[in-house]
Amino acid sequence: MAMDAAAEVDHLAAERAAARFDVEEMKVAWAGSRHAVEVADRMARLVASDPVFRKDNRTMLSRKDLFKDTLRKAAHAWKRIVELRLTEEEAGLLRQYVDQPGYVDLHWGMFVPAIKGQGTEEQQKKWLPLAYQFQIIGCYAQTELGHGSNVQGLETTATFDPKTDEFVIHSPTLTSSKWWPGGLGKASTHAVVYARLITEGKDYGIHGFIVQLRSLEDHSPLPGVTLGDIGGKFGSGAYNSMDNGVLRFDHVSIPRDQMLMRLSQVTREGKYVHSDVPKQLLYGTMVYVRQSIVADASKALSRAVCIAVRYSAIRKQFGSQDGGPETQVLNYKTQQSRLFPLLASAYAFRFVGDWLKWLYTDVTQKLDAKDYSTLQEAHACTAGLKAVTTSATADAIEECRKLCGGHGYLNSSGLPELFAVYVPACTYEGDNVVLLLQVARILMKTVSQLASGKQPVGTMAYMAKVQYLMQCKCSVNTAEDWLNPAAIQEAFEARALRMAVNCAQNVGQAASQEEGFYERSPDLLEVAVAHIQLIIVTKFIEKVQQDIPGHGVKEQLQNLCNVYALYILHKHLGDFLVTGCITPKQGALANEQLGKLYTQVRPNAVALVDAFDYTDHYLGSVLGRYDGNVYPALYEEAWKDPLNETVVPEGYHEYLRPLLKQQLRLSRL
Amino acid sequence: MAMDAAAEVDHLAAERAAARFDVEEMKVAWAGSRHAVEVADRMARLVASDPVFRKDNRTMLSRKDLFKDTLRKAAHAWKRIVELRLTEEEAGLLRQYVDQPGYVDLHWGMFVPAIKGQGTEEQQKKWLPLAYQFQIIGCYAQTELGHGSNVQGLETTATFDPKTDEFVIHSPTLTSSKWWPGGLGKASTHAVVYARLITEGKDYGIHGFIVQLRSLEDHSPLPGVTLGDIGGKFGSGAYNSMDNGVLRFDHVSIPRDQMLMRLSQVTREGKYVHSDVPKQLLYGTMVYVRQSIVADASKALSRAVCIAVRYSAIRKQFGSQDGGPETQVLNYKTQQSRLFPLLASAYAFRFVGDWLKWLYTDVTQKLDAKDYSTLQEAHACTAGLKAVTTSATADAIEECRKLCGGHGYLNSSGLPELFAVYVPACTYEGDNVVLLLQVARILMKTVSQLASGKQPVGTMAYMAKVQYLMQCKCSVNTAEDWLNPAAIQEAFEARALRMAVNCAQNVGQAASQEEGFYERSPDLLEVAVAHIQLIIVTKFIEKVQQDIPGHGVKEQLQNLCNVYALYILHKHLGDFLVTGCITPKQGALANEQLGKLYTQVRPNAVALVDAFDYTDHYLGSVLGRYDGNVYPALYEEAWKDPLNETVVPEGYHEYLRPLLKQQLRLSRL
Ligand SMILES: Cc1cc2nc3c(=O)[nH]c(=O)nc-3n(C[C@H](O)[C@H](O)[C@H](O)COP(=O)(O)OP(=O)(O)OC[C@H]3O[C@@H](n4cnc5c(N)ncnc54)[C@H](O)[C@@H]3O)c2cc1C
Ligand SMILES: Cc1cc2nc3c(=O)[nH]c(=O)nc-3n(C[C@H](O)[C@H](O)[C@H](O)COP(=O)(O)OP(=O)(O)OC[C@H]3O[C@@H](n4cnc5c(N)ncnc54)[C@H](O)[C@@H]3O)c2cc1C
Ligand SMILES: [Ca+2]
Repeated sequence: MAMDAAAEVDHLAAERAAARFDVEEMKVAWAGSRHAVEVADRMARLVASDPVFRKDNRTMLSRKDLFKDTLRKAAHAWKRIVELRLTEEEAGLLRQYVDQPGYVDLHWGMFVPAIKGQGTEEQQKKWLPLAYQFQIIGCYAQTELGHGSNVQGLETTATFDPKTDEFVIHSPTLTSSKWWPGGLGKASTHAVVYARLITEGKDYGIHGFIVQLRSLEDHSPLPGVTLGDIGGKFGSGAYNSMDNGVLRFDHVSIPRDQMLMRLSQVTREGKYVHSDVPKQLLYGTMVYVRQSIVADASKALSRAVCIAVRYSAIRKQFGSQDGGPETQVLNYKTQQSRLFPLLASAYAFRFVGDWLKWLYTDVTQKLDAKDYSTLQEAHACTAGLKAVTTSATADAIEECRKLCGGHGYLNSSGLPELFAVYVPACTYEGDNVVLLLQVARILMKTVSQLASGKQPVGTMAYMAKVQYLMQCKCSVNTAEDWLNPAAIQEAFEARALRMAVNCAQNVGQAASQEEGFYERSPDLLEVAVAHIQLIIVTKFIEKVQQDIPGHGVKEQLQNLCNVYALYILHKHLGDFLVTGCITPKQGALANEQLGKLYTQVRPNAVALVDAFDYTDHYLGSVLGRYDGNVYPALYEEAWKDPLNETVVPEGYHEYLRPLLKQQLRLSRL
Repeated sequence: MAMDAAAEVDHLAAERAAARFDVEEMKVAWAGSRHAVEVADRMARLVASDPVFRKDNRTMLSRKDLFKDTLRKAAHAWKRIVELRLTEEEAGLLRQYVDQPGYVDLHWGMFVPAIKGQGTEEQQKKWLPLAYQFQIIGCYAQTELGHGSNVQGLETTATFDPKTDEFVIHSPTLTSSKWWPGGLGKASTHAVVYARLITEGKDYGIHGFIVQLRSLEDHSPLPGVTLGDIGGKFGSGAYNSMDNGVLRFDHVSIPRDQMLMRLSQVTREGKYVHSDVPKQLLYGTMVYVRQSIVADASKALSRAVCIAVRYSAIRKQFGSQDGGPETQVLNYKTQQSRLFPLLASAYAFRFVGDWLKWLYTDVTQKLDAKDYSTLQEAHACTAGLKAVTTSATADAIEECRKLCGGHGYLNSSGLPELFAVYVPACTYEGDNVVLLLQVARILMKTVSQLASGKQPVGTMAYMAKVQYLMQCKCSVNTAEDWLNPAAIQEAFEARALRMAVNCAQNVGQAASQEEGFYERSPDLLEVAVAHIQLIIVTKFIEKVQQDIPGHGVKEQLQNLCNVYALYILHKHLGDFLVTGCITPKQGALANEQLGKLYTQVRPNAVALVDAFDYTDHYLGSVLGRYDGNVYPALYEEAWKDPLNETVVPEGYHEYLRPLLKQQLRLSRL
């Protein structure tokens, strides 16, 4: 059990006793395997028990102290990883539980993968060992002050000089300043810099270059390099531990062989040549990065839900009708209708994330076999899942905070920081709206090819059933009929397809395809979301159709799957009705069934969040404590605020006493 | 024009020139009168030009410095108010533009109104002059650690002791600690404390008491009083300037006459007696406080929208099809479909807020005339409007932040702080869900009385048309038909009423009314929201049916009114379809018309936010600058971060160099 210390009280014991399933087995279902539970648990405890990894003071540190604390934690984590000879899996988990954004994330998460994906074998041989041992620290410098989403618009130049056999990296305008890269501002010694490659007077567009930024002797910026942090970001603590940076180049030369040359090269003479490696290889990295973002969504969401569920079981408000004890707010149907869909979403995103991991392997294998047939579909589906899960998670964390009433607004609840640190996931690695429009574009293309008989693949395969799905009638007659996965699946498929087909028709009516796409883009967002929600529902249904061991575990997951699907159906009821996929009556029945499902989830709610197996350290919330001993903890936390160092506040003599004593010097009276 | 200084550039000049209406006249429509524009502008400039009121460094201050800064600003504001002999209106605006939450807000906003509303004339005569001159500083101490929404569950006791003619105020449990009151932690000398009145051994429930907390000589807590701040809250800067406090009493005695005695008294002998003043009087204060929260919603939302619209006109991303200049992101239909409804909402909330101000006067007059007939309806409608506008505003601010892409995540965008400081409005003065359930209760009661012929009043009057509204058919045939206010009004009325009637039937089917209400409470929330959205739409329609002077002003407001209504209709399409108020075809037409309206709003968007007349100081956003000179400002702001004081960060020698040099002492290798 994931607790920091043997608890003396357990205010949630009755809740735990009431659960109708085996929590230990649910942990396995959540984590993926018994081994995964064990290693996660071990790493979580390792971090929680190490005073260097303390994080309860994070929101109280100044920016400088917070950054220094991050450097300290990163160094200490590395030390422990080496000392304990941790595996890659263990090291990754350890970093996750340290739970403080920092340069290490970009070093491992972006710098290394960029070199792996875009570097030649020779380049990999040279740079990766340096990175693996932290002899250099790297970041990923793509975004500029003036351009983010539109990578092709970047302005930084890398001009080849055949005289010196070097590239000259330069920032020609203010807006070409690199802006946002994590780890760039203070920590990194190197960066993969994206710049317009210019050779023989011609602009060949954006390419990546390994550029040293700082001296390895004293960490000072190299000549011609201006470096800084871009300033404070959302929240206290949160992402402010990261040194997102600004970088300007004043004609900085790098050797030619620091261009990442896997896909194309510049020769000694300055000729630009393509290699025979297919461009599609780059998709692999994108699928990899985005699947990890989906996995992170389920982590962030499950943390928020864990806090809100436990606190809702502790928090009592208003009496029962008969003057008995007060009601746990978790018993209110409105609390359930707001919270349980988010609990279900956490599980849904977890399982679709697991599936994406499989997809990544599948894509990699196919790439190796030079089979590019499913690549576009895989790319669309990861982009869309990234967008839908991060947007839903951001909203859900804030909803969990509101579900905790006033106390959720305190930093000690952990929820403000969880929100502030999470929300940029909706923007980085592709702005969610931009990504959904990409998905929509592929859906429109797929629809337009249906007539010509081209078979849609992977998660779009259902579109081949267009004849049937355009006219099928939902057979639900009773609320219980909505428990049938086939009914759910069909309704979601019909909704997604009919929306796509309708939209394609509207797009087709415009003067040009491009103009139609532009005019209908708000609708296209909805089309993309419908398609992605179908994928999430489908993968959840597939999951619960597998063998799942453990008393009651499968039943719980079935309930959550139904909650997720019927919640989405209710939330987007307009989609289902306007396309005639279901009748108003069937919509009402779905809502009725949803209410019944909440009743079934209720006794299991606390155990369902216990199954996430989070330590109190990782949760970082007095409201979400495993033992439920919320009030003394809240009270104790309060006194730690620096403002409580004195009873009479600083400023009393200057600004309060003169006011109270009517002694403000009034210059002009 | 509301600028801090004469601008040298205006990157938004072309946008401003393109506007098809008179901005100066729109300012009048927004502010309410020419006088209101003038005084707001004058106060805004007064604050913006005073270095004490600087606020661009707020997110960088430590908690203690931020609090001290707040004390300083409050004292300085008071000094200016007295020196310049400002009117109450001017003083209120000055405080608004100072824009830093602090004890003053509770002193004027809660302490004084509580005494006015619940104190006898004698008590008012004694305490109000002290408060008016800041000889005492007061706060409003109701919420406790264990109880917020359920005021009747508060545990603090006030036991009358006939021997001493005093009340003994006591905190019997940890959970009875007062917790949250703003201004309590450090600044207040007095509080209105809510406690269970106990006399002659009997508990008479919750009553208010004026309690001195601190010495007026040295500000130290009085004997038996424990005081502190409850700790950091959401965001940096934001609401952390406020000393939300914790307060415990250990048998603290106060004179009997410090019980607020307007509605009931305790006699010298300890008898509890009611006065002949009707309880309903208290509703007046609630309506007053909540109408000001609705007004604040439109302020917060308009600030966020102003930032997002201006930045979206500056921000360019992706080329045009023909290789011309890049596209302003404001031209993307998705950007418009996300942003323009929020712009329309800002105007909608502004006008419904104006109407609420009128309602408050109306209620006050009726109370004076002992006419209580509209009180419950007025109370429900303000509670509901508080809930709907604050929830929508909180979500909208975050959406505006996302609309600014990556840069919206920087504190210098102003949006993170705007969000963090705003969100508790969804919780304080009544948790929004709890409020909506109150509205729903009254709606259910009204429905149940329709049969008996009881005429619903005020904003519920439409329910009398039940016969008609239950069966009417929407007559819309073309997209343009949706521009007809009568069509919109009827669709919204039918939707609200049918949802209420359906829900009442479902509630009625349960074993008891109470159980039915409980089971159906998630649906009841939706019923309440539908009713309140109808009110907002109705008040907007009524507004644009008035005479509105100024070239093009009325046309713009008509467009925004239609945007708001059709956006709500599209967002809640399921409601309209499931109740059969409109057909799927009509729903699609509404959506089509919405797209056309965005095209009409587009050229006016920048001018429509200019009409809010906010100074750059008040906006506090480099992205929202009046002159649109965003990039140099962003760049400049970055360097102010304390982390940029040194190029090589603190911690390099301890934590980065040893890592890079492979010199981490590995204790166990
Ligand atoms: C915390 C954080 C960390 C980051 N880390 C890194 C990093 O390590 N390295 C790095 O290189 N970058 C990093 N970034 C930058 C990030 O990748 C960009 O912010 C992101 O790609 C979004 O681009 P943008 O900021 O230019 O947004 P914009 O594209 O300017 O978005 C503004 C608005 O325009 C809309 N929009 C844009 N294009 C279109 C279109 N074609 N159609 C419709 N709407 C459109 C968007 O939806 C949005 O509403 C980071 C950003 C953040 C916030
Ligand atoms: C910034 C801030 C400033 C404040 N300032 C003051 C102040 O100056 N003075 C003061 O006295 N107080 C103040 N408060 C306290 C505030 O009034 C309470 O937080 C608020 O009333 C909500 O109560 P709660 O915190 O007990 O929430 P809870 O009632 O505990 O809410 C928790 C959850 O339970 C749900 N819930 C509760 N009851 C029901 C029900 N009957 N049916 C369905 N669901 C229910 C809620 O919807 C919510 O989801 C402040 C709070 C904040 C955040
Ligand atoms: Ca300024």
